[in-house]
Amino acid sequence: MEGRKMAIIATKGTLDWAYPPLILASTAASLGYDVQVFFTFYGLQLLRKDLDSIRISPLANPAMPMPMPMPVFVQALPGMEAMATSMMKQKMKSKGVASLQTLRDTCRECDVKFIACQMTVDLFEFDKSEFIDGIDYGGAATFLEFAGGADITLYI
Amino acid sequence: MEGRKMAIIATKGTLDWAYPPLILASTAASLGYDVQVFFTFYGLQLLRKDLDSIRISPLANPAMPMPMPMPVFVQALPGMEAMATSMMKQKMKSKGVASLQTLRDTCRECDVKFIACQMTVDLFEFDKSEFIDGIDYGGAATFLEFAGGADITLYI
Amino acid sequence: MEGRKMAIIATKGTLDWAYPPLILASTAASLGYDVQVFFTFYGLQLLRKDLDSIRISPLANPAMPMPMPMPVFVQALPGMEAMATSMMKQKMKSKGVASLQTLRDTCRECDVKFIACQMTVDLFEFDKSEFIDGIDYGGAATFLEFAGGADITLYI
Repeated sequence: MEGRKMAIIATKGTLDWAYPPLILASTAASLGYDVQVFFTFYGLQLLRKDLDSIRISPLANPAMPMPMPMPVFVQALPGMEAMATSMMKQKMKSKGVASLQTLRDTCRECDVKFIACQMTVDLFEFDKSEFIDGIDYGGAATFLEFAGGADITLYI
Repeated sequence: MEGRKMAIIATKGTLDWAYPPLILASTAASLGYDVQVFFTFYGLQLLRKDLDSIRISPLANPAMPMPMPMPVFVQALPGMEAMATSMMKQKMKSKGVASLQTLRDTCRECDVKFIACQMTVDLFEFDKSEFIDGIDYGGAATFLEFAGGADITLYI
Repeated sequence: MEGRKMAIIATKGTLDWAYPPLILASTAASLGYDVQVFFTFYGLQLLRKDLDSIRISPLANPAMPMPMPMPVFVQALPGMEAMATSMMKQKMKSKGVASLQTLRDTCRECDVKFIACQMTVDLFEFDKSEFIDGIDYGGAATFLEFAGGADITLYI
C-alpha cells in the first residue's frame, strides 16, 4: 500500500469513540499508508498526556451491550459514569485490546502525523502544555490540502 | 455506476443511526456500486437476526423533533426510551419508510458484503449464533484493502 | 484546488455538531472546491431560517470541557440544556468564532449547494416554509451521483 494516504478527522473524546481513529490510523500506517489525523472539538482530549480522564457514558447509549439492563434513572446516578468507564477498561484489558496509550504510541512510531485544531484549542482554552509533544497546530484549510489527495478520508 | 465501489464503516446501533448505513448501502448497490459494510462497535447490533431490540433514546438528543417538548428529567423516567422507540417506529411505518429488516434484506439481495469486526465481537462477547448467516468476520486491515480503492468511504 | 469536489452528508443538529459541516464546507469552497451538502435526519435543523433553537446537551457528553465538573443528575435538571447552550454561544462569541448563521451565509456566497433529504422532511413532517430559500430537495441516489466523483466525501 506504499504511496497511499489516509486522512482522519477525529472529533470525539469518549472512551468508546477514542478507539476508532487510533485503531484505523495505526492499522493503515502499519500497512504503509501515509496517515494524518486532525484532532478537533472533543477529539483534542486524545492528545492529552494523561488519557486517564477519558470516560464513557452509559446514558443515552442504548446500543451499548451492558452486563445487565439498567433503567435510565439509575444510569444517571452519581458514580455510574465512573463505574461504566472502569468496567469498559477492565473488559478491554481482559480481552487483550490495546490501551489508548499503546495505540497512540504505535501511531507515533509509524509516523502518523497528529494535527491539533488551533481554533478549538483557543475555543475550549486547552493548555498546550497538557498535550503530548511533537504535534502540529493548524486549521481546516491546511488539513484539506492533505485530505484532497487522500485515498481514504474519514470524519469520526 | 458499474465498476464503482463504496465502503462503509457502521459503528452505531440506535434506531436513528441504524438507517443511514443500510439506506446508503442499498441505494448504492441498486445503482450498480460494489458495496462492503464493516460493522464494528455498536454497529454489530445491526447484524442480529432479531432487530426488535434496537432502540432510540430521547435523552441528550435535543435535535430530535419531538411531538411535544419534554424536560430532560421526564425523558429520563423509566419507560421513556421504550415510548420514544415505539413512537419513532410508528411514524416511520405511517410514512412508508422501509423497516431496518427490509433495508437489510435489500442489501443482501443486491450482494452488499457484510463484515463483522472480529475484535468487537470478542470484546462485547457477542454470540455469533445471534447474527444473521452469510456474513464474513475480519479486521480493520482486511477492510482497508477494499476501502483504499473505493470511490466513497464513509464512517457512520 | 480548482476542479476539486467535496461532498458532505450532514446528519446532526446540535450546536456542537452543527459547526463541522458548515466550517468544512465554507473552507473548502473558499479554496475553490465545488461543494455539495446533503442535509438528512437531524441535520435538517441547520436549514431552518431561525437557527436560535439549535441547542447542546451536557448530558451523556463526558468529553465536553466544562467550566466546572457537574454530576450527571445535575446536568439532567430543568434548564441545564438551555444554560449549557447559552454558555457555549457566549464562549464562541468571546473567542471570535463565527456564528452558525454567518458560516451558513458564507457557504451560500461561495456557491455551496444545499440539498434537503426529501425522505426525512416527510418523516419528521418539517414545514418547508421554515427552511431557507434556494435549497434543493432530493434523495440519496441523486446525492451519490455527485459523491461518487468527489475527492472528499464526509459523513458528519
